[in-house]
Parts: sequence; structure tokens; C-alpha cells
Amino acid sequence: MNVTLSEAEKVIDAAKKKAESKGTKMDICVVDTGANLTAFARMDGAWLGSVDISIKKAKTAIFFNMDTAQLSPMVQPGSPLYHIEHSNQGLITFPGGVVLKNKAGEIVGAIGVSGSTVEDDHEVAEAGAKAL
Amino acid sequence: MNVTLSEAEKVIDAAKKKAESKGTKMDICVVDTGANLTAFARMDGAWLGSVDISIKKAKTAIFFNMDTAQLSPMVQPGSPLYHIEHSNQGLITFPGGVVLKNKAGEIVGAIGVSGSTVEDDHEVAEAGAKAL
Amino acid sequence: MNVTLSEAEKVIDAAKKKAESKGTKMDICVVDTGANLTAFARMDGAWLGSVDISIKKAKTAIFFNMDTAQLSPMVQPGSPLYHIEHSNQGLITFPGGVVLKNKAGEIVGAIGVSGSTVEDDHEVAEAGAKAL
Amino acid sequence: MNVTLSEAEKVIDAAKKKAESKGTKMDICVVDTGANLTAFARMDGAWLGSVDISIKKAKTAIFFNMDTAQLSPMVQPGSPLYHIEHSNQGLITFPGGVVLKNKAGEIVGAIGVSGSTVEDDHEVAEAGAKAL
Repeated sequence: MNVTLSEAEKVIDAAKKKAESKGTKMDICVVDTGANLTAFARMDGAWLGSVDISIKKAKTAIFFNMDTAQLSPMVQPGSPLYHIEHSNQGLITFPGGVVLKNKAGEIVGAIGVSGSTVEDDHEVAEAGAKAL
Repeated sequence: MNVTLSEAEKVIDAAKKKAESKGTKMDICVVDTGANLTAFARMDGAWLGSVDISIKKAKTAIFFNMDTAQLSPMVQPGSPLYHIEHSNQGLITFPGGVVLKNKAGEIVGAIGVSGSTVEDDHEVAEAGAKAL
Repeated sequence: MNVTLSEAEKVIDAAKKKAESKGTKMDICVVDTGANLTAFARMDGAWLGSVDISIKKAKTAIFFNMDTAQLSPMVQPGSPLYHIEHSNQGLITFPGGVVLKNKAGEIVGAIGVSGSTVEDDHEVAEAGAKAL
Repeated sequence: MNVTLSEAEKVIDAAKKKAESKGTKMDICVVDTGANLTAFARMDGAWLGSVDISIKKAKTAIFFNMDTAQLSPMVQPGSPLYHIEHSNQGLITFPGGVVLKNKAGEIVGAIGVSGSTVEDDHEVAEAGAKAL
């Protein structure tokens, strides 16, 4: 079960609307269960550096089947996954990557959002995920 | 002058329609004049390997302000640009990357398409470019 | 609006003069708004390792439209952007990257300086930025 | 004996003048004998893809103490150095990289030029090299 392109477009549209309602400009990425890019959109004026960060957030979420916000405490100095970011050609382990589930609750992909505070990023990613 | 997200979405929609009319499944990427990702879509069932190829085709086109089809003859063994692909962390120099121009004829970005024969890829990219 | 080469050369000249006045040897880089290299100079005897650092500082500043000094507190352990440096093939998030603005206040690129203390690096980058 | 920054600037100025006289827009790079960047300039409107190519041409020339034009025949299929471009994180082996020599004939660095035909690139690099 993989997110389809039309579902990914719905997810991105919902995320864009949430971003606009918050006055933010986001880079938004959707990957499938194989961690491969399904769709991407950079809102006009969104940070260039967030292109890669949004992609890495989405990949990181699907790599471990959990939101990146759950990883954040585990990657701190002294914590179990310290420096996990060195794997997989670079992970992003702060909030903004959220798994996508279908109505049956199965994971079908992930969304990654970057372009504002990590709280905003996570909120916009959640809004996208809810569109499924 | 950079392609906007809504323009990039129009370009991708036109490319998708052309791909569907040909019975092909494509990965389609749009970059701006700085070679940064603006939008991307992978049609359901399109090759995974074409995600990166479509991105590299779009980047290659904007890197040199020309369609990748124009580069193909120049990169053959014995030709002037042999092995140029080793630069810029990997180029794709076969057809499917096409520059995007606005009504005034200015280059505003590029589209890269991959997923079928290079003839199909180029034709679908052209169809996307004409939507501007 | 992108910094031109002659503007970039003015920026680098001003940075060099400031570095000389402080008895330091700097690597100095200017990128445009697309994060692409516009000009670079390594002062005689400046650290080799600072070639890449100065380039990454300039890119990091334009990636997020802010001076790298603003990022430094946000990337510490326990802070929101911890390990953001794993994105974009490597960021540098300590001081020395400064955005370049034209007279109208629009961002036209960024300067990155490396070769001494981060305080010196930032001061020299600021001196360069003021030349615009 | 390494090229100094002021010598590198003279080399780049001479290359720029030659490029202008030919109506071309070039990316121009100078490296020292350690293959480290000394100076770089992208003429306004020069290809983005040529940033990396000019750097790789200069590095390739100093890596082997010969102009890249001398390498071109040796890297063809069936020739001794076939696929040498896979080393050193990417070489460029077509013309445009030229070694820099001081008055005594000692190699002090290299210049790499990219942005037009390989003949133009080589001619502009030669013009730069002659400024020493």
C-alpha cells in the first residue's frame, strides 16, 4: 500500500493551505513506503535550504515508521541514537516529518515540511497528513 | 525571473496529460534558474530510478541553458564534452531536459522528464514547457 | 536580483582590507541568491580548510536568508535545529556567513568568511557586506 | 612556489578580458600546487554548470601537472586512462584546464575555464596563464 500521486497532491494542497493560513512559506515533500520521492512543492519564496531538509524529514519518517519529532529526544548527546544522522546519506531528526496513514491506519508514506519554526513545520505536516 | 510554483504545477499537469495520452508513466521535475527544485511529481508506477534522472535532466538543462538533447552528441567518446557527466555531482545528458521560457522568451527554469524512451521523455518535457 | 561579479569583487575587496587591518588571513566567498558561487578569494597563507568552510557559510546564509550567527544558538544539543548540518551536503552554522543586501534592502546573495576566530570571521564578512 | 592571490587575480583579469573580446561568458578558477582553490570568478550570465567544471578543470590540470587538453586523447574508450574521471571525486578531462608557470618555468598552480566551446575555454585559459 503506497500513497498515490493524486493522494500526495491532496496532502501537499492541504499542507500549503495550512502554511498560507499561518503566513509561512514551506517546502513540502511526500515519499512512499520505499522512501522514494512521490511529490514535492516549494512555495514561492520558501527557503532554498529547506528543499533538502523537507525531503530528508519525509525520508527519515518513513525510514523508521515514526514522526521525526519522536526521534529528536533519542539523538541528543548521551542518548541511544546519538549521531544517527550520519546514516542514510543524512537524516533530519527534528520535527516536521510525519508518517502518512490511510483510513485503515496503515502507513502509506510520509510527508516532510520545512520553512519555519519546527513547531510550524510539524503543524503543517500534520495538516497535510490529515488530508488522507 | 524564476518560474513560480503555480506555473510549475501547470507545466507538470501538461506533462502528465501528454504522458497519459501516450500510455507512459513519468517522473517529472521542475527547477528554477538557480537549479533548485521547484516542484516534482512521480506518476503512479513510474520507475524509481527516474526520480533522480528527471531531477538531473532538469538541473543539467538549466546548468547550460539548453535542452539536454543538444548536449547528447557533444558528450560521446571522441567528442568535445566527453564525460562532462562527472561534474556537478552527476549530469544526465540524454534527451528529456528542456528549458522553460516565459512569453517574453526569457529562461525561467527547466523541466526534466524520465520514465520511457528518450524520445517520449523529450516529447513529454516539450509538452510541459509549452504550458507556460 | 542577483549580486553581479563586479559587486562581488567590491565585497571581497572590502573584506580583504578589513582582514588585513586585523592581521588575519581569510578565505572569502560570495554566492548569488541561487546559492551558486559568484566569486572567491583565498588570502596568501589562509587555512586550506577554510576554503570549504567559507563556501558553506555563504551557502548556509542564503539557504535560510539569515546570517549564520543567527543559526548558531538554534543548532545546539537540545535546541530545535540540532544537526541541521547534515542537510544540503553540509552546512556551517557558526558565525561568518552574512546575507548581502542592495540599497533597497533586497537580499542579492551572501558572503562567507573563514580563517580566524568566528568573531573575526563575522566582522570581516560584515565589512564585506557593507560595501554594497 | 605557489601562485599568490594577487597573481591569481591578474590571471583571472587577463582571462576575463580575453573572454570579453570573444563575446563569451566564462567561469574562471585558479588553484595552487596543492589543488586548493585560490580564486574564482563567474562572469555575469555564465553557465551555472560551469562553476564546478572550471574548478574541476583547474584541479585536474594540477593533479597531473599537465593541461587537460593533453589528457583528452588518453581517456577515450580503449585508451590507457579510460574512466580516470571516477577518481578524485570527479575529473574533467577535456580542454580548458592549463598549468600556470612562473618566469622560471616552474609550475605554481593551474587555471580552469568553462563557459563556451572547449576551444574557446582553452584559449581563454591560455590567455590567463600568459599573464604570469
